[in-house]
Amino acid sequence: MKQIIFCVIVALSSVIAEYKYETKYFKVPLDHFGFQRNETFNIKYLVNDDNWDRGNGPIFFYTGNEGQIELFAKHTGFMWEIAAEFRAKIVFAEHRYYGSSMPFDKKSLDKEHIGYLSSAQALADYADLINFLQGNVVKPRYPVIAFGGSYGGMLAAYFRIKYPHVVIGAIAASAPVHMYPGMAPCGVFNRLVTSSFKTVDINCSKNIRQSWAVIRNYTKTPAGQEVLNKTLNLCSPVKNATDLDTLMEFLESMYSTLAMVNYPFASDFLTSLPAEPVRVVCQYLNETLTGEKLLKGIGKVVDIFTNYDKKNPCVNYKEGDDYGNLDAAGWDYQACTEMVMPMCSNGVNDMFEPQPWNFTAYAEECHKKYGVYPRPDMARLEYGGNRLQAASNIVFSNGLRDPWTGGGILDSLSDTVRAVVIVDAAHHLDLMPSNPSDPEPVKIARNIHKQHITRWINQFREQLMTTRKS
Amino acid sequence: MKQIIFCVIVALSSVIAEYKYETKYFKVPLDHFGFQRNETFNIKYLVNDDNWDRGNGPIFFYTGNEGQIELFAKHTGFMWEIAAEFRAKIVFAEHRYYGSSMPFDKKSLDKEHIGYLSSAQALADYADLINFLQGNVVKPRYPVIAFGGSYGGMLAAYFRIKYPHVVIGAIAASAPVHMYPGMAPCGVFNRLVTSSFKTVDINCSKNIRQSWAVIRNYTKTPAGQEVLNKTLNLCSPVKNATDLDTLMEFLESMYSTLAMVNYPFASDFLTSLPAEPVRVVCQYLNETLTGEKLLKGIGKVVDIFTNYDKKNPCVNYKEGDDYGNLDAAGWDYQACTEMVMPMCSNGVNDMFEPQPWNFTAYAEECHKKYGVYPRPDMARLEYGGNRLQAASNIVFSNGLRDPWTGGGILDSLSDTVRAVVIVDAAHHLDLMPSNPSDPEPVKIARNIHKQHITRWINQFREQLMTTRKS
Repeated sequence: MKQIIFCVIVALSSVIAEYKYETKYFKVPLDHFGFQRNETFNIKYLVNDDNWDRGNGPIFFYTGNEGQIELFAKHTGFMWEIAAEFRAKIVFAEHRYYGSSMPFDKKSLDKEHIGYLSSAQALADYADLINFLQGNVVKPRYPVIAFGGSYGGMLAAYFRIKYPHVVIGAIAASAPVHMYPGMAPCGVFNRLVTSSFKTVDINCSKNIRQSWAVIRNYTKTPAGQEVLNKTLNLCSPVKNATDLDTLMEFLESMYSTLAMVNYPFASDFLTSLPAEPVRVVCQYLNETLTGEKLLKGIGKVVDIFTNYDKKNPCVNYKEGDDYGNLDAAGWDYQACTEMVMPMCSNGVNDMFEPQPWNFTAYAEECHKKYGVYPRPDMARLEYGGNRLQAASNIVFSNGLRDPWTGGGILDSLSDTVRAVVIVDAAHHLDLMPSNPSDPEPVKIARNIHKQHITRWINQFREQLMTTRKS
Repeated sequence: MKQIIFCVIVALSSVIAEYKYETKYFKVPLDHFGFQRNETFNIKYLVNDDNWDRGNGPIFFYTGNEGQIELFAKHTGFMWEIAAEFRAKIVFAEHRYYGSSMPFDKKSLDKEHIGYLSSAQALADYADLINFLQGNVVKPRYPVIAFGGSYGGMLAAYFRIKYPHVVIGAIAASAPVHMYPGMAPCGVFNRLVTSSFKTVDINCSKNIRQSWAVIRNYTKTPAGQEVLNKTLNLCSPVKNATDLDTLMEFLESMYSTLAMVNYPFASDFLTSLPAEPVRVVCQYLNETLTGEKLLKGIGKVVDIFTNYDKKNPCVNYKEGDDYGNLDAAGWDYQACTEMVMPMCSNGVNDMFEPQPWNFTAYAEECHKKYGVYPRPDMARLEYGGNRLQAASNIVFSNGLRDPWTGGGILDSLSDTVRAVVIVDAAHHLDLMPSNPSDPEPVKIARNIHKQHITRWINQFREQLMTTRKS
């Protein structure tokens, strides 16, 4: 088993090594929609022209999401692999306030500077950049396709909705565009996470459901705390209620991440993990466990999650739900402003501790942290909500292994707003580098993507011909 | 002649008297696209429900432009006249920073407060308001059609482009959506103004072309100045170069306005004027005139332009191009930021003094006034530029008498982005109250509008049925 896994990793690495790009910077206004502040700053983008037909080849444009853009470039193999066939230029644009696209350098995330972090501003950055890539001409020559996964998939779809004149279509992978208040049940995400574990082994989800009380129990005495710290191999001890909250948050997030990246191959996308990570961790929880045995099982899960690459001597749970490769510090602010995605659990339909969705408490917490109250209807109003059939040329792909599918578009909405549902696929697997372990459905999905892209490009070229004639 | 004109005015007044509405206010965020400033303020809107089918009747929504909204409500008779047939609710929304929709009351236009005046923010205000009118539900029930004329027409089209999920279609009358740098020749507007006068009488435009030098000549001596002040009946004398510039600006603007509102009936839209105002004023310039005779002719034109309703004892030329009913003080700022519309004249193809388009000088002037530099590509990037075929369900109507037609869409771009060209019609005549003097083509245009609106509403209802089924 291990041998196979390592083979895959080697193969993967060599593929990744082929992704070459130039790193460039592009100047954008701090505020695209008003003029009270007229500063500018640079966003980063990665570009590869190797296969590009400079005459009229397409531009494949990744709408960067919450993290350093190199991570998405590395893991969006689909764009790299089809570039030659389409003679496309590849561009990965970094989202403002992430990676090194910081308007105020190290002070960017401070209360007094963070307010220009929004999806609308990021999309306007991308539109500006594409205008530059088109040569700032009135009649753009190159068809541009937006790609993105997760929040990046939402951005790809939103980019097409808001800038149909800039991008001719969007491949929006695992984009939970319905995960807004009133649009999806708050419990769906945790229910689907649970389902991933339950599908592997019903004892697995049962044990996890039991584990919360066991962990809490261990924190009640100094001796118990020591066992807990040791069994979970924590870098710093759980000393108080705040530490315990953080540990619980870390663990919940761990299970969610495991479900999201439950890929058929080893991957270091969010953190370094073996192939089929849910199956791998569940082998330690496949019989009814209690007390210290259960704690030890959880300890094994945590060990695989944090130390599969043998680089971490202990578990830095204090990173909470920020744990992993994604440097997404700004996301918390986005979730506190426009990206309000209600989450809840009840411990019955899911394996988590009961936690109702309490918008008021959530809003107050946001106000305490950032001095802002969330605008829960904003994203729905700006980006289409339940009326996405009003848009065109968008593919919403969702893998049924992915808990975010609970907020995804699973039925086609029109002839040109299409849903592609992929069984056996986790979070935007269709955008990942192809792999011998890929299930058949994801290969089919990628072919469907290519058909749509071809159609959009042909459509654009026909329009261009018509315009030239007239 | 006069008798007929007065009859029309009486008829018109009685129609206008029928436009009843409630005046309401709606709270919007100062900044829709970021969170650095979290103030709110009220925009005004006018609403009439008399004909509305509250079950599923449409909402006819006027995207208010640069001025107090009551003026547009009064002169957009088309919406009022078709409301009963469509069982529609009528809403006129006021644009932020105009009328009484001021974020910072009387200080709104100050340098330190004006920066949130932009079309994007205004459109987001409208989207918020419509969400409220829909009852803040996830699945909106009422089909909403956007209407607008001139900049309001641009906003109606842009609203459909940016918020296709909010408005199902847009009637964009006389919307110069191509009047941006690099998209239309800078001289086209003044050439078309000239053409209006030339068509009536070639001597009319010739005399106006000669008049500039004559006026300048009169300012060279105190005696000449006195003749000028008296002949043009100026409220305050032209004492220096600045005054002269202002007078010239006032006169240029006067000719443009006369061409724009060259309606077949008397109207007090921008200022109180007789029917066929260009024909009326040209009767004083219909033979070759020179010197004081020419000045007297211009004096007659000015008198008709400023005092047709006998309310102004003298000519307040110091209002420059702000003269008239439209309280559009904020427009100058919009023209200095996003709405950069190059204008030039050469005195050959047009009847104005030669004035090249000099973006650098323009930009510096803007910076001096407001501390901002224009963003000349912004509107093109945000609102589609030359790629409006990427949108859908928009009617661009243009009257061939209207100089703004030079920046309009005169050819249909797709099956659903349609051009309607109306001969014999001035600035958004198709949206004006119907009138016995209306030329046949404008009646046809209004019927085409109604057909499109019907189609859009049916489309929306079909989509609603499909969604309900699924």
